[in-house]
Amino acid sequence: MSLSTSWVSVPENSDFSLYNLPFGIFKTDKKGPRVGVAIGNEVLDLSYLEKKGYFKGIDLKDKKVFGRRYLNDFMALGKPVTNRIRERIFELLKSENDELRDHDKHRSRALFKQSEVRMMMPVKVGNYTDFYSSKEHATNVGTMFRDPDNALFPNWKHIPVGYHGRASSIVVSGESVRRPKGQMMPQGAEVPVFGPCRLLDFELEMAFITCKEVELGESVTTHNAEDHIFGFVLFNDWSARDIQKWEYVPLGPFLAKNFASSISPWVVTIEALQQFRVEGPEQDPKVLPYLEFEGKKNFDIDLEVSIMPGNGEEQVVCRSNFKHLYWNVNQQLAHHTVNGCNIQVGDMYASGTISGPTPESYGSMLEIAWQGTKPVKMSDGSERKFIHDGDTVIMRGHAKNNGMRVGFGEVRTKVLPATFYENEDN
Amino acid sequence: MSLSTSWVSVPENSDFSLYNLPFGIFKTDKKGPRVGVAIGNEVLDLSYLEKKGYFKGIDLKDKKVFGRRYLNDFMALGKPVTNRIRERIFELLKSENDELRDHDKHRSRALFKQSEVRMMMPVKVGNYTDFYSSKEHATNVGTMFRDPDNALFPNWKHIPVGYHGRASSIVVSGESVRRPKGQMMPQGAEVPVFGPCRLLDFELEMAFITCKEVELGESVTTHNAEDHIFGFVLFNDWSARDIQKWEYVPLGPFLAKNFASSISPWVVTIEALQQFRVEGPEQDPKVLPYLEFEGKKNFDIDLEVSIMPGNGEEQVVCRSNFKHLYWNVNQQLAHHTVNGCNIQVGDMYASGTISGPTPESYGSMLEIAWQGTKPVKMSDGSERKFIHDGDTVIMRGHAKNNGMRVGFGEVRTKVLPATFYENEDN
Repeated sequence: MSLSTSWVSVPENSDFSLYNLPFGIFKTDKKGPRVGVAIGNEVLDLSYLEKKGYFKGIDLKDKKVFGRRYLNDFMALGKPVTNRIRERIFELLKSENDELRDHDKHRSRALFKQSEVRMMMPVKVGNYTDFYSSKEHATNVGTMFRDPDNALFPNWKHIPVGYHGRASSIVVSGESVRRPKGQMMPQGAEVPVFGPCRLLDFELEMAFITCKEVELGESVTTHNAEDHIFGFVLFNDWSARDIQKWEYVPLGPFLAKNFASSISPWVVTIEALQQFRVEGPEQDPKVLPYLEFEGKKNFDIDLEVSIMPGNGEEQVVCRSNFKHLYWNVNQQLAHHTVNGCNIQVGDMYASGTISGPTPESYGSMLEIAWQGTKPVKMSDGSERKFIHDGDTVIMRGHAKNNGMRVGFGEVRTKVLPATFYENEDN
Repeated sequence: MSLSTSWVSVPENSDFSLYNLPFGIFKTDKKGPRVGVAIGNEVLDLSYLEKKGYFKGIDLKDKKVFGRRYLNDFMALGKPVTNRIRERIFELLKSENDELRDHDKHRSRALFKQSEVRMMMPVKVGNYTDFYSSKEHATNVGTMFRDPDNALFPNWKHIPVGYHGRASSIVVSGESVRRPKGQMMPQGAEVPVFGPCRLLDFELEMAFITCKEVELGESVTTHNAEDHIFGFVLFNDWSARDIQKWEYVPLGPFLAKNFASSISPWVVTIEALQQFRVEGPEQDPKVLPYLEFEGKKNFDIDLEVSIMPGNGEEQVVCRSNFKHLYWNVNQQLAHHTVNGCNIQVGDMYASGTISGPTPESYGSMLEIAWQGTKPVKMSDGSERKFIHDGDTVIMRGHAKNNGMRVGFGEVRTKVLPATFYENEDN
């Protein structure tokens, strides 16, 4: 089978091939936020296409759904509708389709260069959950802070461990993040101190977004979980390790995480990822029946993290893959709702740090520099144990298979220094 | 000074005196959700009053703010406006004011019996945080599960410990809650089991709601925290103790909490609580400067919890008081934002279980029945170590001072049995 191509130019290594068609929210100088689809280096304006009748025959219920500042209302239309929209766009953009291709006025108004638009938060996140689903990451953390011989807690292989995080502070790629301040208990100190976090870290994660409600008291199964998953983004779960260490007992991370998380702007649908399914790691011991699943539920998505110092070159510090996750998204969602917890459109569920089996594939500076004992040499001569002010952290991800490439673009975040505060010295 | 009275009849022990005037969302058989204020046994319809011109001269910006299904848009108008509305209602309802009192048609259409309306969720909760601010509760839990001689964790007296909870599953008084299912590791077992929670508990809490945004990277201080606090509700933080015990390490409670939390429907403003301010417990050791505060920041609010068995009489099992909290709401909000975490209108912050110093004042069955070792005798002859199916748990709270009474009404929740599930036996 030969692959279809688009009349829109798609560079060979573009994340946004005709087989991707991720949804996002963009704005231009002249017009406010609206729904777009990425193709090559361009953005297709769905609100314009809708107005010009290109979606005739698809029941959108709400004509203004492409003019909103978030994807939530669009996602809430349901998979039968959102998939038809995506299929229609695929048809419209195919090389042989002349409808839009040969309509000079419509084409020129429907397409924008990605370099000339501003990408916004794609969804209004109602509830945000962070899982802890990489065995390698949990093992590394347990080895460093507890016992190398019993690195995993007893519950870890039975439960997709997760916790609730802060929805309000999730920001989109391009937004800078300020180094947080907080309480820390330095090694050997007898009283805590207050000041800027000294051990600022990233966590390489991916997140999925739900598009279909589950009422309170109801549950999703591993079999129907995918009906609820609209798509995925890259997720940088910023972490203040020193604040975390002092605060997290016994109720979990709080201020160490809720100052910011950063996501990529394009939501890659689960439909676009079908070609990249693979088996996950073997689960031993056997999971409880509500966590059993059939089929390939992991995805082969190459991930990488780069750090670009304020005055330096970008440098890759991690190459990992989404396929390493021990717990898959079906299990995560089934577990999350097995107690009757309700699910809403626009909720976000991050994976936890995606570390692979080798040091090159560890997904956080904590692990890469192994608690500061193995600093990373940067091309400008400096060293990194954790993230410095002025550093830009860039995460990228893409899947590739039989010449088909489906990628996520990037989540790129510059770290600004902590602000002055009247109690700074305390 | 003699107290003002209302031309609306206010029974002597009513929570809803002229000095309270809490805001809520109600609906009637004939009309959908709208903003109301409780007075005596009645509800005043603010959307009707606005239409009839009773708020002329107050700049609402948005005329439809009282016709919404949540208080969020009203709260977002800001304290200068919301306080003027409350003061105007105080004037309108005073015995000597004849504007509404003597207008038969308006009066009869503006007032509804509370027994004839349905109360709804008062706010759309964007983000929900649960603190852990009662020293007595934290000490009791630490004594039971860890070490009576070191019951509090080292961070407890330095940090108002908190964590993020699930916003979507917060429901209003009157909504039943279904017993959750989940994974548990029974004492002595070698593998976890799945099934209905066996140790279902309430937690007596109060929660405040924010009405003024704080942008990402900014912080609230203990001095200006109250500008951000609209008011308070009673909060029942339902907890599945057996699920919690197995899941909570190392990232905190998740499914043990997120199946439901229940709140009272009337939001009592912080302005209505000014008369009931008291000193909190002494804080020793001295807190860090960003947690220092001036003035009386605790509130003397009597709280009680009753259990009503399916076929029995209501029976009080706990009498506590909001004043016992070690960390006050100003400190909670200052801590929450000291790292730059943003705050939105409609966010909710629960206190953590409010236990007092004596066994009669413990705020959860875990503590009251001391891990099942001291079961509570019920009037129908049964015993309670935790909550049974068919039980209704009722929390009430009110402040009283110099003949002035300001109360919260109640949060009343019936517990339904767990549903059948195909993997029930596993």
